[in-house]
Amino acid sequence: MSLAGREEIAETLYEETARWPIFDPHSHIDPRRPAARNFDEVLGYHYYTELAHSAGAPAELFAAGVAPRDRARHLSNYLGSISNTIQYSWLVEIARTFHDWPGDSIDRSTIDDLYDRAERSNAGTEWDDHVWKRSRLEAVFLTNEFDDSLEGWDTSKYIPCLRTDDLVLKLNRPATVDRLKRASGVDVGDCASLKAALAALFEKFLVRGARACAISLPPDFRPARAESKRCVTPIRRALHGLDLRGDEVDDVRRVVYWMLAELCADFKLPFDLMIGPVRDVYPAGVAGGRDLFDRRVSLYDYREVFNHFSGVTFPVSTLSPDAGGELTAYSWIFPNVVPLGHWWYSNIPVYIANDLRARLQAVPRNKIVGYYSDAYKLEFISPKFDMFRRVLSRVLAEDFVSARGWSIESALELAREILLENPRRIFAGGKRSS
Amino acid sequence: MSLAGREEIAETLYEETARWPIFDPHSHIDPRRPAARNFDEVLGYHYYTELAHSAGAPAELFAAGVAPRDRARHLSNYLGSISNTIQYSWLVEIARTFHDWPGDSIDRSTIDDLYDRAERSNAGTEWDDHVWKRSRLEAVFLTNEFDDSLEGWDTSKYIPCLRTDDLVLKLNRPATVDRLKRASGVDVGDCASLKAALAALFEKFLVRGARACAISLPPDFRPARAESKRCVTPIRRALHGLDLRGDEVDDVRRVVYWMLAELCADFKLPFDLMIGPVRDVYPAGVAGGRDLFDRRVSLYDYREVFNHFSGVTFPVSTLSPDAGGELTAYSWIFPNVVPLGHWWYSNIPVYIANDLRARLQAVPRNKIVGYYSDAYKLEFISPKFDMFRRVLSRVLAEDFVSARGWSIESALELAREILLENPRRIFAGGKRSS
Amino acid sequence: MSLAGREEIAETLYEETARWPIFDPHSHIDPRRPAARNFDEVLGYHYYTELAHSAGAPAELFAAGVAPRDRARHLSNYLGSISNTIQYSWLVEIARTFHDWPGDSIDRSTIDDLYDRAERSNAGTEWDDHVWKRSRLEAVFLTNEFDDSLEGWDTSKYIPCLRTDDLVLKLNRPATVDRLKRASGVDVGDCASLKAALAALFEKFLVRGARACAISLPPDFRPARAESKRCVTPIRRALHGLDLRGDEVDDVRRVVYWMLAELCADFKLPFDLMIGPVRDVYPAGVAGGRDLFDRRVSLYDYREVFNHFSGVTFPVSTLSPDAGGELTAYSWIFPNVVPLGHWWYSNIPVYIANDLRARLQAVPRNKIVGYYSDAYKLEFISPKFDMFRRVLSRVLAEDFVSARGWSIESALELAREILLENPRRIFAGGKRSS
Repeated sequence: MSLAGREEIAETLYEETARWPIFDPHSHIDPRRPAARNFDEVLGYHYYTELAHSAGAPAELFAAGVAPRDRARHLSNYLGSISNTIQYSWLVEIARTFHDWPGDSIDRSTIDDLYDRAERSNAGTEWDDHVWKRSRLEAVFLTNEFDDSLEGWDTSKYIPCLRTDDLVLKLNRPATVDRLKRASGVDVGDCASLKAALAALFEKFLVRGARACAISLPPDFRPARAESKRCVTPIRRALHGLDLRGDEVDDVRRVVYWMLAELCADFKLPFDLMIGPVRDVYPAGVAGGRDLFDRRVSLYDYREVFNHFSGVTFPVSTLSPDAGGELTAYSWIFPNVVPLGHWWYSNIPVYIANDLRARLQAVPRNKIVGYYSDAYKLEFISPKFDMFRRVLSRVLAEDFVSARGWSIESALELAREILLENPRRIFAGGKRSS
Repeated sequence: MSLAGREEIAETLYEETARWPIFDPHSHIDPRRPAARNFDEVLGYHYYTELAHSAGAPAELFAAGVAPRDRARHLSNYLGSISNTIQYSWLVEIARTFHDWPGDSIDRSTIDDLYDRAERSNAGTEWDDHVWKRSRLEAVFLTNEFDDSLEGWDTSKYIPCLRTDDLVLKLNRPATVDRLKRASGVDVGDCASLKAALAALFEKFLVRGARACAISLPPDFRPARAESKRCVTPIRRALHGLDLRGDEVDDVRRVVYWMLAELCADFKLPFDLMIGPVRDVYPAGVAGGRDLFDRRVSLYDYREVFNHFSGVTFPVSTLSPDAGGELTAYSWIFPNVVPLGHWWYSNIPVYIANDLRARLQAVPRNKIVGYYSDAYKLEFISPKFDMFRRVLSRVLAEDFVSARGWSIESALELAREILLENPRRIFAGGKRSS
Repeated sequence: MSLAGREEIAETLYEETARWPIFDPHSHIDPRRPAARNFDEVLGYHYYTELAHSAGAPAELFAAGVAPRDRARHLSNYLGSISNTIQYSWLVEIARTFHDWPGDSIDRSTIDDLYDRAERSNAGTEWDDHVWKRSRLEAVFLTNEFDDSLEGWDTSKYIPCLRTDDLVLKLNRPATVDRLKRASGVDVGDCASLKAALAALFEKFLVRGARACAISLPPDFRPARAESKRCVTPIRRALHGLDLRGDEVDDVRRVVYWMLAELCADFKLPFDLMIGPVRDVYPAGVAGGRDLFDRRVSLYDYREVFNHFSGVTFPVSTLSPDAGGELTAYSWIFPNVVPLGHWWYSNIPVYIANDLRARLQAVPRNKIVGYYSDAYKLEFISPKFDMFRRVLSRVLAEDFVSARGWSIESALELAREILLENPRRIFAGGKRSS
């Protein structure tokens, strides 16, 4: 295989994968308003505000009260300082693909033209449909709070997912308990009624076609089977709004987490684990740009969960770039641990390539879930998947076609498996308990 | 240097290194039955059963009681799901190299033919010799339990190594103490007799040509000099089968470990440290496929050992892929720390390339021990070394010939040093104490 | 883009960047004797003695008492064993660039000729000037002890930096307190006088053109705001030479560290943090070759500092190669955290490439400080920057020109920003408090 041939093969692989539909198993899309109505909503993605802020922009420039076009202008002043980032490249791709923007550089001198081109305030759902089709979307998974009404959209396209961070991490707050009572219709007061309330949420989500339960967990969370006796009192106190000691808060978190895993087992729902973020590490940052991590985290802390819930599939994302090797090893050994995409601070080409190479070399091909967008607006799904497809094509060309003599057809089958077949099968939907 | 030239150079380097003999400084070969007598013994390598299990196969399909051909058929049903893995590629190479198998894909439709071709039940040691020669083997190091008789094979080819996991980690179990008494002929009961017993083992192993002492240690092991006073009681209690507190178990482990290091110093034996595994993290897994790791481990915990035993060479393997940088740094500074191959979850091309690049860039060339097979059957040594030689050739072509202007001859000298000269010198054999 | 084109582009980028001046924001150059007067002073760089020692040389061969030419001869005997290392490649580049050495291999047979060629005992500052110009140096930052007189050199070329390790980590030693009293002219005895003394040091350094405060911190250091009440006594005890408990030593370190950060805020000085080393891990090593690290370290421990001192720029270097991902993420979020070069055990091409890729993909371009030499002799600055420029050129050619379609001009602008514009701006100098 000549090297020139290898580059051509990568290009061939990319072009073919770019023709496929996109199955996106995790996003933050608002299904009632999925596409951006103006370019401020595109630039509002926390990547741009946080990078601009990191580059020197005061956070106030992007505050909620600023008029959209002004906010976009403010941001444009700082895009020159982040033009190297991969996130900036998504922006240019959006401008070109969706707004026929002919430019090269998005800056103060070009932002008004681009803003005008991207104006869709009156476009309504037609624009959503346009972006959907242009991006060849097949399914987009959502992140729904547990008390989301789940009404008002086509759940065969925008797939509900039960996000459970608040239930696990904030049940010691009265507001969470109130929300849970209202959402579940259960007057929670002890372990039994808590479990019943959570089951009611699962029922509701299943009826509306939910296909995953999901949670993000901080590095210091240690999931463990809750000793029921010991937890009776902390759970009661939490549900009645009483103060808890630190160790009791931990107990409550573990109990709720365990109950959720039990319900995932009952309802045959995969339980997405997003492991690593610490919230509000930089409180003065922009909205969405305040969280970081402590890299001293290990999947070893999850061994009891992975063992006990052998019937539950755990698609796992890890946040710290150096944690990728561990996820490969745990996915290689545990049948129910599945490596899920490339997340947040690990979602840049250099880390994607490293992690993807390892997964393709050592994790069964029927378990790898290639990518998800994590997007807040529909326009981002295509450029983010494109970034992944380019890395994937290069890795397949180098490690499989060139180094191992695979045919292009075999490489494409592997790509198809991790991009489409696995996510379709693994996230095929739960089953209501009988 | 043109890029095409670079690829050609990598190929040239590979072809040359592939002609050399193999010196394999760590394996789990059974010297009384080194080569596989049928393809079930090839497929029985834990990589295949654990990956198939991870891909969905029930562990029972591969249980000891299943008939060999049936077990191979069961496994073949799942090979399609792991055909992407580098481990699968070894399998195809074995089939082609040793069994004249003309196929591409090992699956249910081809397994019977392959099984028939690989049938060697009556071949006896001739087959072992054939595989030995075909693989150009020069020496294969073993993993011998301390009470192995060490009889029944040619120890100039199959080199005994004293594996000491049980002595360090399980001396608090009466069965271990019994084994030690029998193997050493010493009626152990206190620290002095324990040391005498261990010395007797070293004597026995040295007489039979042992060239290394080896141990695998969990992430929470903290080697430290044992305070003799403090340890008198725990050692006595362990040797007499009495219960120990957790901290006493730790003390016993440290004492035995320290004694072994002292004996390595006395007998001039290298002490292989395989750092990182936690045993039985996934107890429901297949045999050999239950161990994982906690990546929060550091060689810093070994500083006292490396300093105190400056006369002992410690060839070190680390398990967690993200620990490779630390091993490079410790090998760069400590004269007696030697980076040893690429182990288990770190033994896939992407991690090998990263770790190898670092070692070749920053560790003295006379200290790098390129690779070992870790194999259980002779047939695996050649394809595993081949994987390494391909990575090595590419790294040499890129980082040395292309980037630094080295000649092909100089690159081959470096390859020869880490593949042959260093392991031959470092593992040249111990000396009986006088 | 053809692959051959990519290689050519990398070469074009390198050649252009190699013509630029060098702005070196961190070194250990002695400004009173910046260039080496003989080849022993080149070979005295700890990389060579420590690698030779690691390769088998007794440390005594390089002791202070040995005659320079003999020391060089001793070392030359071991250079063959480290000829693979990137550090050795700097040596050859120095020999060729500065001493017209025509050879290929520096060894016992060639060392005398090279030694003679490099003899500059009587050259005086002319030789310094020659190396300065030949290397196209623009500014070289120093590492000055807090009691350095700061007299005797051109501080517009050799920029003073206040190194504060001793103040923070060794204030509990009477010798440090004595040095502080003498250097500051303040009779320190309590928190207030300590702060005044430190402020006096800052004043003195600012007057002499200092442009950074710097410190290296061990993995177990936990910076935190000092509770003033609690610390009154430990600070008094330290300043009066009385014994401290372990927790009091920690308190003292935190107080001094916090005061220094306050002064950096007052004086508008960047505070370089070099995070990770443990001193004297291998006490029997050669001078400068005894320090290592514990990789279990996280920037999360610095969150309070980064938040509280939002007005202070923290250029951060991390020591453990696996910590690079965290530094990228923290630089991406915190406006005042800046990734600073590639340090020590992370300063080899494979780790530089990985870290650089991540920074260029995800950190605002106006925050990346490409490289510093860390050199002890002027001759090393050029070859070390050259190593970096080669890696940078390749990364730009692959990730930007080839993968993202950037022009060569745009790639060069990015290179110029991280090599010259950012360090010039970030290290533009402090301001004396009013």
